[in-house]
Amino acid sequence: MLHVVREDEETARVTLAQVAEQAGVSISTVSKVLNGRQDVSRPTRLKVERLLEAHAYRRTPRSAWEAPLIEIVFHELDSIWGMELIRGVEDVAKANHASVVLTESGTRHLPGPDWVGGVVQRRPVGVVLVFSSLPPAVKKQLKSRAIPFVIIDPAGDPEPDVPSVGSANWSGGLAATRHLVQCGHRRIAIITGPRDMLCSMARLDGYRSAMSMAGLTPDPDLVTFGDFHVEGGYARAMELLDRPDRPTALFAGSDLQALGVLEAARVLGLRVPQDLSVVGYDDVPLAQWSSPALTTVHQPLRQMAQEAAQMLLRLRAGEDTATRLELNTRLVVRHSTAAPTGTAATADTAPPDA
Amino acid sequence: MLHVVREDEETARVTLAQVAEQAGVSISTVSKVLNGRQDVSRPTRLKVERLLEAHAYRRTPRSAWEAPLIEIVFHELDSIWGMELIRGVEDVAKANHASVVLTESGTRHLPGPDWVGGVVQRRPVGVVLVFSSLPPAVKKQLKSRAIPFVIIDPAGDPEPDVPSVGSANWSGGLAATRHLVQCGHRRIAIITGPRDMLCSMARLDGYRSAMSMAGLTPDPDLVTFGDFHVEGGYARAMELLDRPDRPTALFAGSDLQALGVLEAARVLGLRVPQDLSVVGYDDVPLAQWSSPALTTVHQPLRQMAQEAAQMLLRLRAGEDTATRLELNTRLVVRHSTAAPTGTAATADTAPPDA
Repeated sequence: MLHVVREDEETARVTLAQVAEQAGVSISTVSKVLNGRQDVSRPTRLKVERLLEAHAYRRTPRSAWEAPLIEIVFHELDSIWGMELIRGVEDVAKANHASVVLTESGTRHLPGPDWVGGVVQRRPVGVVLVFSSLPPAVKKQLKSRAIPFVIIDPAGDPEPDVPSVGSANWSGGLAATRHLVQCGHRRIAIITGPRDMLCSMARLDGYRSAMSMAGLTPDPDLVTFGDFHVEGGYARAMELLDRPDRPTALFAGSDLQALGVLEAARVLGLRVPQDLSVVGYDDVPLAQWSSPALTTVHQPLRQMAQEAAQMLLRLRAGEDTATRLELNTRLVVRHSTAAPTGTAATADTAPPDA
Repeated sequence: MLHVVREDEETARVTLAQVAEQAGVSISTVSKVLNGRQDVSRPTRLKVERLLEAHAYRRTPRSAWEAPLIEIVFHELDSIWGMELIRGVEDVAKANHASVVLTESGTRHLPGPDWVGGVVQRRPVGVVLVFSSLPPAVKKQLKSRAIPFVIIDPAGDPEPDVPSVGSANWSGGLAATRHLVQCGHRRIAIITGPRDMLCSMARLDGYRSAMSMAGLTPDPDLVTFGDFHVEGGYARAMELLDRPDRPTALFAGSDLQALGVLEAARVLGLRVPQDLSVVGYDDVPLAQWSSPALTTVHQPLRQMAQEAAQMLLRLRAGEDTATRLELNTRLVVRHSTAAPTGTAATADTAPPDA
């Protein structure tokens, strides 16, 4: 069950009375603002919010008999990751007799003003943000209502002052590339994600380190950037594979990009893994259903969401919690990787057992 | 914005007073039961529930200023359909400034008793059930709180007294098979879903009708039942394809089964579509990402969920609504189907242009 912070009702009542007096409104108006009701004028709302902040008012959480809610906010719901993250939050909610409220923030990364009003009315246990960030005013509103928030950030670029959960991107890139090296590949290409995402860079650096540790220098022509989607994987793979000195192996940066690579290989008449080894990243459910099933780096999305929801419960109970948690990734070997057959390896690379 | 039913407060107050008197409890206890609070003994709760039902009490919906909620209940969240359905409900919620509450009912098809208590406390606009049904007692509880519910039932087996949204399974099976006939195939196999699901039978009947309309008699050996998952598709396809008189085309019954068929074809060294045409069913996102991209029957999951949520809003506003809505399916032709090359067709089938 949820822990409930003990209430100091007397202090809270005194504070509310002071805020009401200083704002020149009734206590009932202050209470309306706290509850996110819309029948208070905007200037009054802002005045009361400022005073609540000045008094460092912290609302008592809902009492334990009420049906508790955990909120999860997505930037976009069409992410292939979405369901795993929802399941992770739902796992923790179910164990705590809570329900999950889902919001899609839309095209911007920030949830809109409607959203925070709703959250304040619903008084959830806390808020899990996927890939989103909050404007300072929203953070203050949530803090004064004692509603904690945690960011799930697989991209590895968290805000420093907000608790967050991510996964080990550099280690994942290293493990993917090492596996290809150990299969005997020397001419290994990479399609990482977009240049402006830290996780793309971390995976690329993992690739470089694995190459370097194997005494290999990556051909700069074989280092490319995609979009984390099928289309980018297909386009980059067509460029990388439709040339005489094509690589024998390719680290695709994401499972969706790997699916694009498989399609490019099919179109070019290359067999996977005989003519080309492919490693994905993420291990979303479809990775095991592709033909052949993908060797990939498992990113523990469901577990990351579980950790984020657990962090909320600890924060809500007033316990200490880590501000950044990074879960391990691990390589899952399936059927898209094998030793090179030698037909495609260029003459200047060392033999597999060199 | 949401429509709100006009309140007849006086009638409601009189009814509550009568219920309290007849139950021998205070009005505040009746109110606690209505609000789903747990600090009322079970016998008292049951007595009050019975009296509320006898008085045909209908609670006034929450006032418009409150943050409205739409609930969606899944049997299991790992369904590949889940995200599309969530997105459909979220579309309607967003347009109505509402949020979505998500519950996974667990291994049984019925949401647990915890669940209905939470719903009664949250007082949502309504409840969308995916593949679930409600016990009569739960239906009564929701009705007395004026909380409507609608079932999304792609399996085509709705309860007659509950509004539901489905899609046209028979037409989908017909369209899939017709496409294969029009490509010139004569020896066409089917892997439909489990025998105990109406949608499996409807898709199979669509297949039979398309064959019959083309003057073809299905070989009983080519009519098989799967499990709607990748494993079932793979197992049936290995049996169907690893024989001298193998079919030149296969209607796979679901996209997941089609992925299993693609993998079986790869293992057996058959090229798709040159040696084997494959049609899926559902058009889940991964259908366009397989190699080759799947020809499939589009089931409008997102739109079905939108319709279900719209039905809730109409029911909530006291408007009439259909009790069963069946949306159209449509064939989406991609790259997994083509004319037979003749290498695999048996001698006793007619030529494509016969």
